[in-house]
Amino acid sequence: MKVDGTAYLTIELADDGFSVLIIDQTLLPHRFERVRLTALHQAAHAVRTMQVRGAPLIGATAAYGMALAARADPSDEALEAAARTLLATRPTAVNLGWAIDEMLAALRNLPRAARAVRAYERAAEICEDDVATSRAIGEHGLPLIRDAADGKAAGGPVNVLTHCNAGWLATVDWGTALAPVYVAHDSGIAVHVWVDETRPRNQGAALTAWELGCHGVPHTVIADNVGGYLMQRGMVDLCIVGTDRTTAAGDVANKIGTYLKALAADDNGVPFYAAVPSSSIDWTVTDGLAEIPIEERDVHEVTHIAGRSDDGEVRSVLLTPEASPAANYAFDVTPARLVSGLITERGVCEATADGLASLFPGRRRG
Amino acid sequence: MKVDGTAYLTIELADDGFSVLIIDQTLLPHRFERVRLTALHQAAHAVRTMQVRGAPLIGATAAYGMALAARADPSDEALEAAARTLLATRPTAVNLGWAIDEMLAALRNLPRAARAVRAYERAAEICEDDVATSRAIGEHGLPLIRDAADGKAAGGPVNVLTHCNAGWLATVDWGTALAPVYVAHDSGIAVHVWVDETRPRNQGAALTAWELGCHGVPHTVIADNVGGYLMQRGMVDLCIVGTDRTTAAGDVANKIGTYLKALAADDNGVPFYAAVPSSSIDWTVTDGLAEIPIEERDVHEVTHIAGRSDDGEVRSVLLTPEASPAANYAFDVTPARLVSGLITERGVCEATADGLASLFPGRRRG
Repeated sequence: MKVDGTAYLTIELADDGFSVLIIDQTLLPHRFERVRLTALHQAAHAVRTMQVRGAPLIGATAAYGMALAARADPSDEALEAAARTLLATRPTAVNLGWAIDEMLAALRNLPRAARAVRAYERAAEICEDDVATSRAIGEHGLPLIRDAADGKAAGGPVNVLTHCNAGWLATVDWGTALAPVYVAHDSGIAVHVWVDETRPRNQGAALTAWELGCHGVPHTVIADNVGGYLMQRGMVDLCIVGTDRTTAAGDVANKIGTYLKALAADDNGVPFYAAVPSSSIDWTVTDGLAEIPIEERDVHEVTHIAGRSDDGEVRSVLLTPEASPAANYAFDVTPARLVSGLITERGVCEATADGLASLFPGRRRG
Repeated sequence: MKVDGTAYLTIELADDGFSVLIIDQTLLPHRFERVRLTALHQAAHAVRTMQVRGAPLIGATAAYGMALAARADPSDEALEAAARTLLATRPTAVNLGWAIDEMLAALRNLPRAARAVRAYERAAEICEDDVATSRAIGEHGLPLIRDAADGKAAGGPVNVLTHCNAGWLATVDWGTALAPVYVAHDSGIAVHVWVDETRPRNQGAALTAWELGCHGVPHTVIADNVGGYLMQRGMVDLCIVGTDRTTAAGDVANKIGTYLKALAADDNGVPFYAAVPSSSIDWTVTDGLAEIPIEERDVHEVTHIAGRSDDGEVRSVLLTPEASPAANYAFDVTPARLVSGLITERGVCEATADGLASLFPGRRRG
């Protein structure tokens, strides 16, 4: 997607053919800065400190981290050590382990001299596949937005509400939940996004608003409390969210607060979709509420927030009384009954075991 | 309620018999500081800058503002000018106009020499009545908490979720939504409060957490996104919120985001109560969604947030991209069908026209 009129990917090979450029997302929305990774430890640092985040992008960064490691030392021992280093950065990110396994499988039986070249090839493939998946989600989601546009007797843009960041910054390009928005916008459909700020961590206010603004998509930042009001007043045509893990029965685990918006959508007859790359489907689980463990994160994310102060410095400020405890549950599970459909790279299906099985035959839980 | 072991009111006459002490709520939770009001213009400033907020407390401050004015100049002209000055501070606060009218009615037919004394008397009565109303709401809400405690087979505290600040800081003492919590706590029932931080303005994180902590009530601050998750997991026994305006049919207008929590309560079988002093019932309105106008406030409250930075200074920081628009709807309306009951100073009733009429006969819309 575009930043200041130039198309970027969140991760890409530099012109020197070996170093890797990422966007330092910890500086957004206040500063756009790319960081050059030239060694494994820098890739691990980028994942650990959340310079890159979003499951697909974490996977892509790990893949290039393995390539950087293979260039420095292609021995089995070095590659296995690199895999361990990367795996330890974010133990809960599903795509991290997947991408590392893909890289090890691609390199294991090659002569050492051939490994670095193949590693870069395989990392590039992983990134290209991610772009293709996101783009396909965008194409399959487009009719939902087009139909909403056609159905608006009063005209005006299609109003999409999203939560957290499931945009191109969470992937290599296009995003998941925002891919249909970008495809619609680029094809000339008037679309406007209500951006939940998404406390804590504020990925909506900091990342979603920034990337939509950079690409020229009209949007409005709102507190997380506002979506219900908007839906009561007919100001939302559809909701599209991402997912961190979706069960084989269509329960959607996503950033905390997603469930509240799904309830409001249900109460007001607003379609509620999750954009679900198949890599985020957990085929071993059907009951999301009972079976998906919910990460508890550092309460500092609740008691503090970072922003740019008047002197231009980005500062973290304390919001709560010093003695007040806080809790930080990172995800919730939206039951499939509240989800109008799942937008996957193979098409849109019902949020049911049958719906998913129709697109992914043979993957149903055994 | 208590601060550092000492009982305070949010507003009270000083020992000198004429000046008025308030708590500067704009400094909370980072600094507890009382401000002495000695003249009308200081009272008006306190309301305008939100050193005091909460409809009942705004009314009480306006009453003492009129007393300060009467002391300086008890002429009709001076009192009418004082009324205009105070009314202009927060044009939407219902209790402001009511308190000013009460003061003018009490003074109008008195000889000038008697007005100042009567003004202080009437202001004190208004404050005492507010305390009595809040205390009665606490007593009537107590059985709800006691029943929840008795019903907990597993033991442990009763977990109450609240939104925004409807505590003693919003009134003269006790609060509305928090009055039953304080009464329960003081009577030895173990109670724990989930405190929604309540973006924007963060009255939950800044005020509710502070006042609960000062009084020794166990509590945990959470992002506004979290309540649904907690209710899905059985971690909330009941919700109690305040109200800015409740219709004669039981629709509850309150701080934005209340509706989302009511939906989650309904979806999970959690009782959801609003604490409603009769002064906040609008008997002229039945359909809250259609008839209650919703204030849009400065978007700066969404794009920025204030907190204490590492150097000890309270700073406002920018959270969003500079070019991103924001919207700030301040209230939403929770339909009566989602409200388990209304806790008033006369008892608890159903959130229906019949329920309210049973407690307030003769007030039904005509």
